[in-house]
Amino acid sequence: MSEQADTGQVHKLVVIGSGPAGWTAAIYAARAALEPVCYVGVPKQNPSIVLPGGQLMLTTEVENYPGFPEGVKGPDMMADFEKQALRFGTKKVGEDIESCDFSKRPFELKTSGGDVVRAHSVIIATGATANWLGQDNEMRLAMSGGGVSACAVCDGALPMFRDKPLAVVGGGDTAMEEATYLTKFASKVYVIHRRDELRASKTMQERFLSQPNAEMVWNSTVVDVHGDEKIEAVELENTQNGERSKLPVTGLFIAIGHTPATKFLEGSGIKVHDNGYVALDTRSSKTNIEGVFAAGDVADHEYRQAVTAAGMGCQAALDAERWLGANRLH
Amino acid sequence: MSEQADTGQVHKLVVIGSGPAGWTAAIYAARAALEPVCYVGVPKQNPSIVLPGGQLMLTTEVENYPGFPEGVKGPDMMADFEKQALRFGTKKVGEDIESCDFSKRPFELKTSGGDVVRAHSVIIATGATANWLGQDNEMRLAMSGGGVSACAVCDGALPMFRDKPLAVVGGGDTAMEEATYLTKFASKVYVIHRRDELRASKTMQERFLSQPNAEMVWNSTVVDVHGDEKIEAVELENTQNGERSKLPVTGLFIAIGHTPATKFLEGSGIKVHDNGYVALDTRSSKTNIEGVFAAGDVADHEYRQAVTAAGMGCQAALDAERWLGANRLH
Repeated sequence: MSEQADTGQVHKLVVIGSGPAGWTAAIYAARAALEPVCYVGVPKQNPSIVLPGGQLMLTTEVENYPGFPEGVKGPDMMADFEKQALRFGTKKVGEDIESCDFSKRPFELKTSGGDVVRAHSVIIATGATANWLGQDNEMRLAMSGGGVSACAVCDGALPMFRDKPLAVVGGGDTAMEEATYLTKFASKVYVIHRRDELRASKTMQERFLSQPNAEMVWNSTVVDVHGDEKIEAVELENTQNGERSKLPVTGLFIAIGHTPATKFLEGSGIKVHDNGYVALDTRSSKTNIEGVFAAGDVADHEYRQAVTAAGMGCQAALDAERWLGANRLH
Repeated sequence: MSEQADTGQVHKLVVIGSGPAGWTAAIYAARAALEPVCYVGVPKQNPSIVLPGGQLMLTTEVENYPGFPEGVKGPDMMADFEKQALRFGTKKVGEDIESCDFSKRPFELKTSGGDVVRAHSVIIATGATANWLGQDNEMRLAMSGGGVSACAVCDGALPMFRDKPLAVVGGGDTAMEEATYLTKFASKVYVIHRRDELRASKTMQERFLSQPNAEMVWNSTVVDVHGDEKIEAVELENTQNGERSKLPVTGLFIAIGHTPATKFLEGSGIKVHDNGYVALDTRSSKTNIEGVFAAGDVADHEYRQAVTAAGMGCQAALDAERWLGANRLH
């Protein structure tokens, strides 16, 4: 057992995660004198890119977070969120939470450093990570803003993609939606799919294919990404005959789904949906367990934007404060 | 009929309102090439203060909108939201929408200028206004940041209120919640109530009264607010005997409810809750009428924060875009 557990200290609120939802929850909770402790996590790569600060650490220019008319760099923005949370007294810990015991009150959380941390309430804001193909060049260009992205809605309208040929990898509704969105800006949008038919609904397919600059690339997988500072082409392999070819593109959008970061909740009793996302009460941040709240992408597969995550973080902090107050724990 | 209606132009999306929700919806919609038209409204006063830009125009320092670690002035922040929406091509109109006909497709909206505007989809983001006592000095000090506020959660943690005597006017659960919140910062918190018992639940009352610096001022109404640049005292009148007295305070928080701005929706068929707020589908921005969405305080009496409103605005724009796309209107 750690010193922390030995001293018997019980935190009013632990926030798990350090993206827009986690830091916003911390800002509100700290201002409400809940003295939140924020577990920001440890950087990880493969199969996904997991960073303290969340998915925005992988973006370059953020143009749609309201309040920044000239845009803001994703990592700068997250540094500002963090600064704001720390300013009001949030305590930051650079560890992961590895498992949770919500059957005890106060709750017990096990950290990656081997400590057991106790808390009256918890906000889960661990986010979701985009699924990537997993190639070195893809990851490198995604992390350096080199034209590889997992979010067309976030990045598609950036000047670097205007009137340029772009490729989308995927075959579901989201891939079709992202590809259709990109047709407004791009000279050409290729959708690269490993099979000869799509998983996406007929309506979504038709909507994409009705665009004059839309084109399907069937039976193909991306086996490499070319380009030094910026992506220049993708290398395709035909899944039928193994033939390889190069497709010149200025942007590559990976749309093969997201994975919510909920592994540490296994066995905790927290209810998740079939798709793995944390289930919430109607229009609040409450999970099925009293005193446990969730915010951001870990509980939202629909919108997944910085500002929606931040809004949910705020809700979670206010919900936690009310719950702590009603239970005389604050 | 107006020229606009005569030309037969149909907008893809009209946004009604210009607070955090309205501008965020416009930012997202404009980036998605929906060419949104934003009706920002006309300034009004009495019985409530209604301003283009919303309730934040009445705040001074905003410390809890994430992304601004040093804080930001409410009006500056809203100017930035607007600038960002206009940058991506939002069209701004300085009129109110006075009534809506959602029984026709495209929808028809009547403006305060007498025009009839047609739109395939609409986002309602007209907000809610705090109820005020309605006294001149109260309104003046509220609008100039002189220590009169209608939101303790927004403003209570500001340095100007630390270790100072504060008063809350009201008697409901929200008043108790705001008063309890303020006890963490203030030297003293008076709750001024016109009767000799509260409407608030027993738990909320007890929670407030258990604080050492809490005090009830029964049977009293605030008949005047004293102070030049900053509030110095409230003048009370005893509702039993009519006696007047001065209570020195450094902050006055009005907590007598909010009124959602939904008068223009009367007869439109849009479903509202018993408390007047627009009813939304579970966890989306959809109203009961297809193609009509709502965001921000007009549909949220729970959280009412800039960042939650902004998050909802983003949701509404994404929902509108998906709906327009699925119906081939975009």
